[in-house]
Amino acid sequence: MAQNIPYKIYLNENELPKQWYNLRADMKNKPAPLLNPGTGKPMKAEELEPVFCSELVKQELDNETRFFDIPEEIYNFYKMYRPSPLVRAYFLEKKLGTPAKIYYKFEGNNTSGSHKLNSAIAQAYYAKKQGLKGVTTETGAGQWGTALSMACSFFGLDCKVFMVKVSYEQKPFRREVMRTYGASVTPSPSTETEVGRKILEAHPGTTGSLGCAISEAVEVAVKSEGYRYVLGSVLNQVLLHQSVIGLETKAALDKYGIKPDMIIGCAGGGSNLGGLIAPFMGEKLRGEADYRIIAVEPASCPSFTRGVYAYDFCDTGMVCPLAKMYTLGSDFIPSANHAGGLRYHGMSSILSQLYDDKLMEAVSVKQTDVFEAAELFARVEGILPAPESSHAIRVAIDEALKCKETGEEKTIVFGLTGTGYFDMVAYEKFHDKEMSDYIPTDDELAAFRARLPKIG
Amino acid sequence: MAQNIPYKIYLNENELPKQWYNLRADMKNKPAPLLNPGTGKPMKAEELEPVFCSELVKQELDNETRFFDIPEEIYNFYKMYRPSPLVRAYFLEKKLGTPAKIYYKFEGNNTSGSHKLNSAIAQAYYAKKQGLKGVTTETGAGQWGTALSMACSFFGLDCKVFMVKVSYEQKPFRREVMRTYGASVTPSPSTETEVGRKILEAHPGTTGSLGCAISEAVEVAVKSEGYRYVLGSVLNQVLLHQSVIGLETKAALDKYGIKPDMIIGCAGGGSNLGGLIAPFMGEKLRGEADYRIIAVEPASCPSFTRGVYAYDFCDTGMVCPLAKMYTLGSDFIPSANHAGGLRYHGMSSILSQLYDDKLMEAVSVKQTDVFEAAELFARVEGILPAPESSHAIRVAIDEALKCKETGEEKTIVFGLTGTGYFDMVAYEKFHDKEMSDYIPTDDELAAFRARLPKIG
Repeated sequence: MAQNIPYKIYLNENELPKQWYNLRADMKNKPAPLLNPGTGKPMKAEELEPVFCSELVKQELDNETRFFDIPEEIYNFYKMYRPSPLVRAYFLEKKLGTPAKIYYKFEGNNTSGSHKLNSAIAQAYYAKKQGLKGVTTETGAGQWGTALSMACSFFGLDCKVFMVKVSYEQKPFRREVMRTYGASVTPSPSTETEVGRKILEAHPGTTGSLGCAISEAVEVAVKSEGYRYVLGSVLNQVLLHQSVIGLETKAALDKYGIKPDMIIGCAGGGSNLGGLIAPFMGEKLRGEADYRIIAVEPASCPSFTRGVYAYDFCDTGMVCPLAKMYTLGSDFIPSANHAGGLRYHGMSSILSQLYDDKLMEAVSVKQTDVFEAAELFARVEGILPAPESSHAIRVAIDEALKCKETGEEKTIVFGLTGTGYFDMVAYEKFHDKEMSDYIPTDDELAAFRARLPKIG
Repeated sequence: MAQNIPYKIYLNENELPKQWYNLRADMKNKPAPLLNPGTGKPMKAEELEPVFCSELVKQELDNETRFFDIPEEIYNFYKMYRPSPLVRAYFLEKKLGTPAKIYYKFEGNNTSGSHKLNSAIAQAYYAKKQGLKGVTTETGAGQWGTALSMACSFFGLDCKVFMVKVSYEQKPFRREVMRTYGASVTPSPSTETEVGRKILEAHPGTTGSLGCAISEAVEVAVKSEGYRYVLGSVLNQVLLHQSVIGLETKAALDKYGIKPDMIIGCAGGGSNLGGLIAPFMGEKLRGEADYRIIAVEPASCPSFTRGVYAYDFCDTGMVCPLAKMYTLGSDFIPSANHAGGLRYHGMSSILSQLYDDKLMEAVSVKQTDVFEAAELFARVEGILPAPESSHAIRVAIDEALKCKETGEEKTIVFGLTGTGYFDMVAYEKFHDKEMSDYIPTDDELAAFRARLPKIG
């Protein structure tokens, strides 16, 4: 069997999914609704529309429609870089000496360098269709900002990115790619917004955070005529768009009659994992098949494994609705030494509900272990992985090594979300042994938890 | 017809070429042989073997064998990232409003970021097979060094890279990728070699050059037990390995019954162009078909368009054999402002002979025009191109615009050799309008020409 499976399974262009799959339609326990922080009641469409594009609000709130047609303009854009390959990791298997069969879905072969483009182009399209002038957003590691810049440039939309200040300064090349795509990039916190000025006043030397950049981007969107805010993870709509990853993965596996035993993905806000697992989890929810589904998060920011399932603010400035999610508390910021993305304090409401229903597992991994896996992978598979993606690599390798001990020929699928070309400072720290594995203590986490809003 | 052609033509894995094509076998006028600078006589295999791996020396000197089998180990490695896609540039065509049909062969979807890996893995394989401990090389922009590091890591070979000092300092991330693959990287000129110390003594503040780094790498290879020197361009063996690009391109075009009118490639030492055009030039040489074949070089380093066809040194330290090529003189160094690669003073002997026989054309393009094309391409085709590759984009666009004027539906194929993730400093200069278009004067070129060796 194995001999007949190519290194890279490419679907044909006409096998690119024509619809996104809405996992919520198959969930018995639906994800908890967003709440208005003022009233404590579920947000209605009309309350969300000043912030988000109307069509995206519909997608956000729709827990019933199973499939959404992918509009032709988005579909054609997808064809530039999709279907993405499902790769059989023959060289990694050989290196590990494992009987396990390892596959990875590689989303890094586009200039934004990650899967983020799948949702960026959708969100830009709906903004354009609504006749908007532009969109605002935040970016941390820079993958989402880059993806959105590309998408906006394609549709001729203005794109305003608030980039976490520490990233803005440490990643000038990321910034420059966004400029190549015509975006304006502002280090956050900035003096351009009320919330930014407030934060700067309270914390003069701050290097910023994702939660703070979100607050700034939302404020500018709400106050500017013809602008809306867009977000690259966490939201239901984003997971809907990202389902294209899972649908392609499943189609490629089905083509060769492969049934995976486990599906592994890194999880920050959940955009990649939610997309990758969507059709598999759907089968599981409908009782048609069973899979182990494993979320991997950094030990430095352990929302699933050490957080609580509660309503919390999505941003530091508390301008966003409340979301029920596994969270560490909206003012949690992981150690500055943590090099990858996956730094967000909370987790997608969809994934949080599935995790709470014990339909998926979660593990946390230490940073240096992640980079060790990244380097091993780069050397044998020829792809320099992003630190985020490398969390999934770590656990895939660990599972494959367990198979080596037991002799089981399990089939492991993991998501390789992107490339690490803009993360060489982190690799350098790893090479120079200057990378630490700081993990928050129980007391520290309890302190953040104590500040959670008392709702829900 | 056009409607039936997908955005990306992927060959199946079993359509990956099983042999490299040696264009020299079909050339009536063979490329001029390498000469021993001492005797002025053609270099024999035994004179080359202290420097190069034995199998590669055979390939270098063989002007007759039409096809070389690709060894299985190399073939399997190729499968990690090949066949590479031939992309129909629908979005670029639309943007330009041209009736021309534009295709590009994209070689950037591997971690080294360029086509260089095609030859790196071959050279590393032959070194390993010969039982060597390691190889030495030079790198300028860093693509070749990265590719060789990956290849050596794969075969467990030691890899010692001399990196032009100015690049070493300006491109720390390139250096770090090479370290990820276990290579040692030394800024050149260095004090580790005799030739390096000599150059440093004569030019204390020098930031180095490719010709100087070559001299250092050759010296270390020759003086170290179990080491050989490898080179990423110019040589016949390199063009042989790179023929895989052209063979795949031709197979993909044939699959859809497409006959190109012109084939365009950037040319520094000639590795990409020589590989891309190989099977097409072969048909042309055998009188089976005709194509316009266009080499594109930077106006700042115009070997074809303003150089002379003569024997010259390949390196600054004059430790290498003499090669007959279109050259600007071995001590020519393009303006420091020139941002891309393509800075080598000479050109592949094969391409030089073909150009001298008027079987191909050459044009030179100005730097800012190149970056303008690069940015336009990035925005519509979603790939951030390397500055080198963007020379070909510039001319492809110019030819497509000519078609727009005449209404001709020509089919244009160009080589997109790599991605520009590590070239953001150059993009930044372009955005900030700090990029100049310095072109050497006739007097300057004449001065370099006057110092050419009086041989051949």
